[in-house]
Amino acid sequence: MGLAISLPRLRSHIETLSQFGRNPAGQGITRSCWSPPYEEARAWLIARMKDAGLTTWVDEAGNTFGRLGEGAPTVMTGSHIDTVPQGGSLDGALGVLAGLECLHTLREANVRTRRPLTLAAWSDEEGRYASLFGSKAFTGKLDARQIPHFRSADGEALVDAMARAGFDPLEAPKAKCDPKTLAAYVELHIEQGPHLEAARLPIGSVEGIVGNRRAWVTFIGQADHAGTTPMEWRKDAFLGAAEYALAARELVVKRGGGKSVTNFGRIEISPGVSNIVPARAILLHEMRSLDGRTLARLDRQCRVLARAVAKRRRLRVKVETISQSLPVHCSRRVMKAVEAACGELGLKYRRMPSGAGHDAQNLASVTDSGMLFIPSRGGRSHRPDETSDWKAIERGGNVLLHTLLQLAG
Amino acid sequence: MGLAISLPRLRSHIETLSQFGRNPAGQGITRSCWSPPYEEARAWLIARMKDAGLTTWVDEAGNTFGRLGEGAPTVMTGSHIDTVPQGGSLDGALGVLAGLECLHTLREANVRTRRPLTLAAWSDEEGRYASLFGSKAFTGKLDARQIPHFRSADGEALVDAMARAGFDPLEAPKAKCDPKTLAAYVELHIEQGPHLEAARLPIGSVEGIVGNRRAWVTFIGQADHAGTTPMEWRKDAFLGAAEYALAARELVVKRGGGKSVTNFGRIEISPGVSNIVPARAILLHEMRSLDGRTLARLDRQCRVLARAVAKRRRLRVKVETISQSLPVHCSRRVMKAVEAACGELGLKYRRMPSGAGHDAQNLASVTDSGMLFIPSRGGRSHRPDETSDWKAIERGGNVLLHTLLQLAG
Repeated sequence: MGLAISLPRLRSHIETLSQFGRNPAGQGITRSCWSPPYEEARAWLIARMKDAGLTTWVDEAGNTFGRLGEGAPTVMTGSHIDTVPQGGSLDGALGVLAGLECLHTLREANVRTRRPLTLAAWSDEEGRYASLFGSKAFTGKLDARQIPHFRSADGEALVDAMARAGFDPLEAPKAKCDPKTLAAYVELHIEQGPHLEAARLPIGSVEGIVGNRRAWVTFIGQADHAGTTPMEWRKDAFLGAAEYALAARELVVKRGGGKSVTNFGRIEISPGVSNIVPARAILLHEMRSLDGRTLARLDRQCRVLARAVAKRRRLRVKVETISQSLPVHCSRRVMKAVEAACGELGLKYRRMPSGAGHDAQNLASVTDSGMLFIPSRGGRSHRPDETSDWKAIERGGNVLLHTLLQLAG
Repeated sequence: MGLAISLPRLRSHIETLSQFGRNPAGQGITRSCWSPPYEEARAWLIARMKDAGLTTWVDEAGNTFGRLGEGAPTVMTGSHIDTVPQGGSLDGALGVLAGLECLHTLREANVRTRRPLTLAAWSDEEGRYASLFGSKAFTGKLDARQIPHFRSADGEALVDAMARAGFDPLEAPKAKCDPKTLAAYVELHIEQGPHLEAARLPIGSVEGIVGNRRAWVTFIGQADHAGTTPMEWRKDAFLGAAEYALAARELVVKRGGGKSVTNFGRIEISPGVSNIVPARAILLHEMRSLDGRTLARLDRQCRVLARAVAKRRRLRVKVETISQSLPVHCSRRVMKAVEAACGELGLKYRRMPSGAGHDAQNLASVTDSGMLFIPSRGGRSHRPDETSDWKAIERGGNVLLHTLLQLAG
């Protein structure tokens, strides 16, 4: 198979990085972007990039880079080293450390590629403050006017977090790249779903990343005494939200073309006491689809459904879109490079969508962008027990190595 | 009609009391037991009792009394002067101030009854710390060991609130009465429901107070990535809770014998983020019924339902009873006195249950206890716009006056 990465070195790096932000046993890793453990991890990563012989720099959005070779355009790889609260050791970290291992391997072997290679660790992919923040800034999608408004769920302002880490938050849009300097981007990630493991396949060749639509769906009824108001008089906002959630789930399953999913991750009801009929129920409703037209149709159908439920229950309802992203198709050139690398290494693969968002979707607007997946054990991710097999990680690292060789020639 | 209360004086007292704890316009009255505005209102009430010529005292549970006449046993009337947050001006206050007005009227008219008459304002009926606290203490139902554990929803300890108001909380059980000193108890209250207004009837003769069962119903599923986990693999605790709530509501309506109601006043889901399938959903499930056997059967049937929903959705479920009270039947003697008073005054009445809990249910364990209702406009209560008509209030006050004359002879 020719050139190959060093699994012991990659494993050692994954295990070391997983100690930054490590919680008490069983509670995983909390390494939120701009936090002290994140900044320590980033300093450690820069040191490892230097060990690998890379030229390093950090941009105005906190994105951290290491380069092998000179000139432009460059072939990029990378991912992120922040985690969700109580997350695992591979989501993001794998893509960064496998990319580091590939560049280290090439430099040790004195392999000179036609294009230089650049490794990136993007800021705040998990969105403690703003989802995919670093790659948004890099691809020119960051609106400077929004920056002062980005806050974490617990109310901390992004500007305070960035200032604490030594960055000037209002400078972040200056991280915008010149697309002419980029030749391609490819990102290795765990699948975060069960399909590869179930099919016993080592590699997923990602054909696209789903679009995502998040909305607040608010049902408004009337706060009445829950003992004295006849059942048929009540205007119960919670029961409206419950009926909507069950029906919207069925709608997305039956009419989403088999490639759409939905979730209700939060609900708040008020006044929130035992003996008062809920006057207001706010649902956080997320839908994802690989097909943009399907996503737009489901959004319309769910609005119709919400109004029908509200009317039947004598409630009012409003639907407010929080965020919307279109599905992104991966570059054919990058997919072919991944699949050619699998061919060289004798590994089977399946073409598949990504149900989760990734920095690669932002890179797609400035260069040929793609991804490859390795299996997630039990399909688990964003959890302390998120894991894969070391063999699977080694295979993924080698496919990434040969994909980079395909792309950088 | 003979003796009659003074509506102008009663109205003035209601309007004055409503200024204690008054919020900015439209936000009603917040006069929680033991709070500074409550303690000021209680001092004002004691002064008004003295104006009416009553002998006043306060017991160890903060219950505040005024007596007309000497000896034992005594006929009691009263209610409470605490409110829910952002409540109205009549729930509780009407019963206390109408009782005060009755005793004042009798004293002014030099009417001597066979039994002495006692007015009571019971502590914390609304249960900021512990529902029906004062009447529980008075009727010997207060377990001293519980006192250190009573807390408000926002975490304040009862012991701190009572100490701030100048009471020794551990002394509260000493408020226990000697039942031999009591001849009867009757309480005037707004209906807090729509039935009297809808039937255009001035008076409800209360035949009983519903029993109440509150439980936490917790569904436990699995926190998975909401983008990458196939819909059919998910174990979504929120959707389980939603299905249970809708089905339990139907069960109580269809099988509650027309005299049972139910409510889901709170739900908490976790981890509570957009892109993670809810692993845990906790519902606060309340049921009430005028029939104890029906309430027990509904409780059993809801437990069966919860397990069936959980099984179908591959979730776990637990049902934990928080509190349980049996329905209370009002004293026939008190009901007859109320109805005789209506007869004297030429007012129609309807026998009806109380869907809300009241201090009268505790008094029922130590003496002949009953209630009368006047209409609530729009059935509204526990709201800033809770109200009735002054004419209706005057009628209610006069029925209370003649009921007391019936009972105290």
